[in-house]
Amino acid sequence: MKSDLDHLLKENQADAIWITGPAQHNPPMVYMTGGGHMTQADVIKRVDEKAILCHAPMERDEAKRTGLETLNYSKYPLKERLKLAKGDRLIAHALLYKHIFTEIGLTEGKVLVYGKTDAGKLFSMLNKLQTLLPGLVFHGDMEDSVLLQAMATKEPEELERIREMGKVVMAVVSRVENFLASQTISNETLLKSNQTPLTIGDVKNHINLWLAEYGLENPEDTIFAIGRDSGVPHSSGTLNDPITLGQTIVFDIFPCEKGGGYFYDFTRTWCLGYASQEAQSLYNQVKSVYQQVVSELEIGKNAAHFQNRTCELFEGLGHATIRQDPAIEAGYVHSLGHGVGLNIHEKPWFSRKDDPSNELVPGSVFTVEPGLYYPEKGMGVRLEDTYFVTPQGQFEKFVDYPMNLVLPVN
Amino acid sequence: MKSDLDHLLKENQADAIWITGPAQHNPPMVYMTGGGHMTQADVIKRVDEKAILCHAPMERDEAKRTGLETLNYSKYPLKERLKLAKGDRLIAHALLYKHIFTEIGLTEGKVLVYGKTDAGKLFSMLNKLQTLLPGLVFHGDMEDSVLLQAMATKEPEELERIREMGKVVMAVVSRVENFLASQTISNETLLKSNQTPLTIGDVKNHINLWLAEYGLENPEDTIFAIGRDSGVPHSSGTLNDPITLGQTIVFDIFPCEKGGGYFYDFTRTWCLGYASQEAQSLYNQVKSVYQQVVSELEIGKNAAHFQNRTCELFEGLGHATIRQDPAIEAGYVHSLGHGVGLNIHEKPWFSRKDDPSNELVPGSVFTVEPGLYYPEKGMGVRLEDTYFVTPQGQFEKFVDYPMNLVLPVN
Repeated sequence: MKSDLDHLLKENQADAIWITGPAQHNPPMVYMTGGGHMTQADVIKRVDEKAILCHAPMERDEAKRTGLETLNYSKYPLKERLKLAKGDRLIAHALLYKHIFTEIGLTEGKVLVYGKTDAGKLFSMLNKLQTLLPGLVFHGDMEDSVLLQAMATKEPEELERIREMGKVVMAVVSRVENFLASQTISNETLLKSNQTPLTIGDVKNHINLWLAEYGLENPEDTIFAIGRDSGVPHSSGTLNDPITLGQTIVFDIFPCEKGGGYFYDFTRTWCLGYASQEAQSLYNQVKSVYQQVVSELEIGKNAAHFQNRTCELFEGLGHATIRQDPAIEAGYVHSLGHGVGLNIHEKPWFSRKDDPSNELVPGSVFTVEPGLYYPEKGMGVRLEDTYFVTPQGQFEKFVDYPMNLVLPVN
Repeated sequence: MKSDLDHLLKENQADAIWITGPAQHNPPMVYMTGGGHMTQADVIKRVDEKAILCHAPMERDEAKRTGLETLNYSKYPLKERLKLAKGDRLIAHALLYKHIFTEIGLTEGKVLVYGKTDAGKLFSMLNKLQTLLPGLVFHGDMEDSVLLQAMATKEPEELERIREMGKVVMAVVSRVENFLASQTISNETLLKSNQTPLTIGDVKNHINLWLAEYGLENPEDTIFAIGRDSGVPHSSGTLNDPITLGQTIVFDIFPCEKGGGYFYDFTRTWCLGYASQEAQSLYNQVKSVYQQVVSELEIGKNAAHFQNRTCELFEGLGHATIRQDPAIEAGYVHSLGHGVGLNIHEKPWFSRKDDPSNELVPGSVFTVEPGLYYPEKGMGVRLEDTYFVTPQGQFEKFVDYPMNLVLPVN
């Protein structure tokens, strides 16, 4: 939670966080400002002090709406900075921040830096700024960052927004299911009204349209992968592929609120019309492992415990797993899940058994998504729902949706 | 053009470019790979050599589709790197790149770094990598970067894609115009079928839906700002505001191809039903300056020349301009335009009079968007089209759309 930031900063011997970049599609900035239409902004928050938002003059109204204290870049005109920098734009850019940090009285200590932005440019600018403000140490931390630790425990208002996302995703998934079931079929292939094959691309276009109807964005695309593609977990599907009966279809959908807000993540695997015995058997195994792991979820346990347990269960069923070989491409080849929030992937991580900051605690939001992949057999199965932990420590699925492999068709 | 990269690198005494981050919504990566569904990738291109794409094992199919030479991260398992790094994840991360650069034989020289990604983390990792590969110098350049210079001159295929975007944008703008004109009106306010006021938010929802129908994304939102908001160039509009007659509405729309591809940028200013004399007079002035500047566009001239000329013209009409005071909030307060491509804002820049890389040349794509803003009077006017320079040096608007201030209503 945001209120954890101060003690997390202290625990990490840091004196401030600094978030830079645009206000949208930049999770750290959305977290601190709520988003809004700012092409470039900076939020600086010192330990035990309020966050300050630095903004461009043209974006002053958007800046005001955040409710944060504001500081207008126009106080430090580029022209003057360029003069001081003898025309060097990198130095002129660093001078902006020298002025800002000096103005707010932060010239000593450790500053943690966040933001999804032009990373190469920031690298060179920060190294220059380091020489201009030798009392500051800038640091970008890794996947267990202070900010991601705060973001990992959601407040009730955040949980409600994610649940709303889940409801809309279920509505869209249901429309996809009905849409597929209502197509005409010839030669085991779904046909459009013009009698040409319905393609993966057609289905994705419908999904995007339906998501837009509900006001959502789909920045990461949708996975709608059939046959061999379904056997490669991150294959998003081949747009021109026709949709045929009896093939496994992995349908993984993960849109977010408009402007880069909260995500929801959900997967079902379907076979249209019928399934081979082998596909049905894989499906039953994935479903049983899913149910077993969910039944064992326990507060205070490290997420990695459940990844390990999933490997154990799949190995017991005779499948190779990623804990045996990280480069594996057949069997159980990925992680059981990941945290979900303003990032589609965030803490808790399911691969850090030694790190207590990945324990499941009240406010945790994460996916459970076991899967089995056999690309050479042309099939894959994954089942995924997004879960959270209530303030009372109960594990709950945000929204429910049936788990059936075979979708009846016309 | 991409084919300029080698000589631009040489001119800048650089030995390679390195692009990192996701494959979508990351303009440098989209430029080099064409996009695709990769959550993390690296493209390294040495002078006079082919680009190499490094990718995650699960994303091997997406990587193959780019047609680039590929290198799988799985060659350097995290487990082994963590062991070497004694558990330090930052060092383990830097070791991945040490291995990659060593494998491709790039251990000496200057490497330009690009990518829209987690910038703080990259900062710390690069400084660590610097110590592991002391023969390399990493550098992130500014707004006149080598990559942006290459991207600034579009190939015919890129121009065609931008023109297609323009056609779709015109179709959506026309639908918005018809939609507004067909609402019922009471008390000078547009009403929905349920007799409640039509809001800015309603209009934006329709815009997003129509854009999705054409398969576009709208990651940067739309500006649909009325009254005082229209007098603040970057105000995107207040969602709950009703839409009333006689107020200036600045409608600035700038969607991109799915996955973060090419943008188009377009603005019209409308008053529904009628316009005040003052608004009409501002409109006529902006339109005349627009036409004058377009008539003067000339190949080989620096874009900044036309910003200067626009200030001159507006000053001649009695308005304050940004060249007189960079912090100005009333009058002509922004730049005449900007380049457009995989970034909504890119080269040519209109503010660098001394930099020949901002000259208008064949392949340049840029907006022309003069405007006048009087927030205290509750009005603003901006008119914008996207232009390009043909191989023969002619200036052309991609697509046309009428310029009329007053939209007749029911």
